[in-house]
Parts: sequence; structure tokens; C-alpha cells
Amino acid sequence: MTKLDQLRDALRAFTAERDWNAFHSPKNLAMALSVEAAELLEVFQWMTESDSRSLEPAARAAASEEIADVLMYLVMIADELGIDPVEAAERKLTANARKYPVEKARGSSKKYDEL
Amino acid sequence: MTKLDQLRDALRAFTAERDWNAFHSPKNLAMALSVEAAELLEVFQWMTESDSRSLEPAARAAASEEIADVLMYLVMIADELGIDPVEAAERKLTANARKYPVEKARGSSKKYDEL
Amino acid sequence: MTKLDQLRDALRAFTAERDWNAFHSPKNLAMALSVEAAELLEVFQWMTESDSRSLEPAARAAASEEIADVLMYLVMIADELGIDPVEAAERKLTANARKYPVEKARGSSKKYDEL
Amino acid sequence: MTKLDQLRDALRAFTAERDWNAFHSPKNLAMALSVEAAELLEVFQWMTESDSRSLEPAARAAASEEIADVLMYLVMIADELGIDPVEAAERKLTANARKYPVEKARGSSKKYDEL
Repeated sequence: MTKLDQLRDALRAFTAERDWNAFHSPKNLAMALSVEAAELLEVFQWMTESDSRSLEPAARAAASEEIADVLMYLVMIADELGIDPVEAAERKLTANARKYPVEKARGSSKKYDEL
Repeated sequence: MTKLDQLRDALRAFTAERDWNAFHSPKNLAMALSVEAAELLEVFQWMTESDSRSLEPAARAAASEEIADVLMYLVMIADELGIDPVEAAERKLTANARKYPVEKARGSSKKYDEL
Repeated sequence: MTKLDQLRDALRAFTAERDWNAFHSPKNLAMALSVEAAELLEVFQWMTESDSRSLEPAARAAASEEIADVLMYLVMIADELGIDPVEAAERKLTANARKYPVEKARGSSKKYDEL
Repeated sequence: MTKLDQLRDALRAFTAERDWNAFHSPKNLAMALSVEAAELLEVFQWMTESDSRSLEPAARAAASEEIADVLMYLVMIADELGIDPVEAAERKLTANARKYPVEKARGSSKKYDEL
């Protein structure tokens, strides 16, 4: 069992012990995930890109907490929907490699349909 | 090496081959993560909570793609910041267990400071 | 001059007095707008739809504050880009009326390309 | 009646004609608002701050459409909750002036509790 599977199981137990399943519809979990993603965004909102590459300790600690929250809600919504998030990402990365061939995409931030 | 470590390494190679490191400041990756979280949210926006618990195949496939995108950006921003996302989640879950003791939090959706 | 024009002018003065123009790139204002939209979302995240239609005073006050924040950032980003947000909305509503003809869209939450 | 009041009335009619009131709980409208805010964010996600200040016509048109969508959902959720968004913003701006006194806030992007 991977560490991500262990995290999923710990989250299942955490939720069950507190009787929170009623709140954890995929709709609500998607909302919570968006809220946490925005809290991560907030860490960077007035920072230059350059400063975001060398965070001070307080900002780095804040980012770490929000990354944790995003991952927990992501694991929970994937679990509710019966989706393996790592396998889904592997499939998507393979698809992206076709949509963004190296020779066309190199150094460009354009979307695949504009390359 | 776990599958999540393998995904991180595959994303590093994908980014390096396309010379995309210049675009991948933590600030930009946090934006991309929020955008993908909102695309996941969009799947559920007009659905009842009940319907979100039994998705039709097209909606489930759409959710799976967006979960994949969120995970990829999460792995990339964590990698840029030198943070292990699973360890960060484990620490946060331990902290949450203290903030939401079972006897007080059971069946409640209140924030810890209102319990 | 409408009250929205007055708000725009008050925000211009507020920003100029504090020398905040350097932070208010459209990119950063779009981030701040998303963060505030998520804070509004947070008010509703564990609520049923039904409860969201009859908010308790504290939740209603919180929603009002976040609506205020979203509107301020919306006015600021539109101002930076030289866009009149009300005229843009009027144009979009006219376009939406064509995309969602009454007889096809009635009672349906489908996107226009699935109607 | 201001142009914003006219927009609110046009949105009420648009929604009523299509029998969409059932979908327009404040919870769902807050989700839709967040989704549109993220679509605005997407316009800027790989752009430098500097480039975001001088958009090319296609990006400016895209931003204008998303600003329109955000404003429409903002007007609708405020209407559902019985909140006047411009008055709420005026109150918030007055409160912000106290939280961010000119002499302390000038040239700083810190939050009021860190000034």
C-alpha cells in the first residue's frame, strides 16, 4: 500500500468517526477543493513571479498547509467517485504528450489548439 | 519509489523537454491549479448534491480529467517549492484531529473555532 | 455619473493614495478576484442549497462582505483594462439569449451546445 | 434606475422565462461565480504581469467576456440574497480605509494585521 493509499484510508476513518459523510458529497468536496486552491493562490497574489520562486519561511509554511488541504480534498473527492487520481494523471500526461509535441510546444505557452 | 514520485519525475521531464520551466513559477502554477479546480467545480455547479453522488459516465469522465489536472499542478508546485505533499497532508491531518475532536465535531459542519 | 462610476473613482483614489498601482496588474487583480470569489464560495460550502436560500444573519453578513470584495476587484480590473463591465454584461446577455432560446432552454441546466 | 438595476431586472426576466430559478440557489450561483472568476484568471495564467497590462485584442476580448459573466452572477447572487452590491462595496471601502491608513499602507502589499 502506497503512502497515498494510507492517506486515503486515514481520511476515510477521520470522516467516518466524525459522521461527516453526509457533508461530503462530490459537489461539496469540489467546492472545498476550490476554496483551498484559492487559499494557496492567496499566498502568491501580490508577489512577483521571481519572489514566488524564493519564498520566505512564513510564506513557504503557509503554502505547505494549503497544498496539504488541496491534496486531502482531492483524495477524498477521487475516493467518493471511485477514481484513482495517480492513474488518471498518468493517462492525462500521456494524452498531453500527444497534444503538445516537443518540437511544436518548446518554449511556448500557447494552448494546443493554437500551436 | 512510489507512483507519486514517478509522476513527479515524469512531469519534470515533460516540462524540461518543452522548455516550460520559465512559465512554471509557483505563482503561475498556483493560478493553473485554481483554474483546474474550478473546471472540476464546473462539472457539479448545476447538479444536486444527490446527483453528484451518482454521476453519469460523461460527467464522471470529465471529473476524472480535472482531478488529473489538479493533481499534476499540485505535484509540480510542491516540487518547485521543495515540499512533499503527502507528508504535508499527514501533518495537517494530525493537526486537524486535534482541532476537531470526535466528541465535539461529530455530525457538525462548523469550523473548529465555532465548535 | 452612476454609483458604479463613483465606486470606480473612489477605488482609483484609494489605490493612488497608497501607491498600490504597482501591485495592481490585471494578472494580480484577476488572482485577487478569484480569491474573493472563493471566500464567497466558502460561506456556502457545507450548506444545503435550501439553507443557502435562507441565510442566518451571520452568514448573510459574511456573504455581503465577500460580494463587496468581488465587486471592488471586478471594477478595478475592468478599469485597468478599459472595459465597461455593465456594457460588457449587456452584450453577453444579448448573446446568451440567442444561445439559450426560451423554448429549448426552459427548465434545463444543459450547456447551449448540448441543448 | 441605474444601468446596474436595469441589468438586474434583465437577468430576472431572463431567468424567469427559462424557468431557471430552481437552479439558482445562492450556493449554485456562488459556484458559477467562482467558475467564471477562474475563466478570467485563465486569460492571465501564463502571462507576465507586464504583458497583462497591454493585452492583445483577442485576450482583451476574452477578458471582457469573463468580466461580463462574473458581473452577471454577482448581480444574481446579490439579488437572491437581497444585498445591494454597490452599497456593500461602499461600506467595505470605508472599512478598508480605516484598516489601511495611508501613512502605514503606502507602497506595501502586506495585510492590515501585518502592517
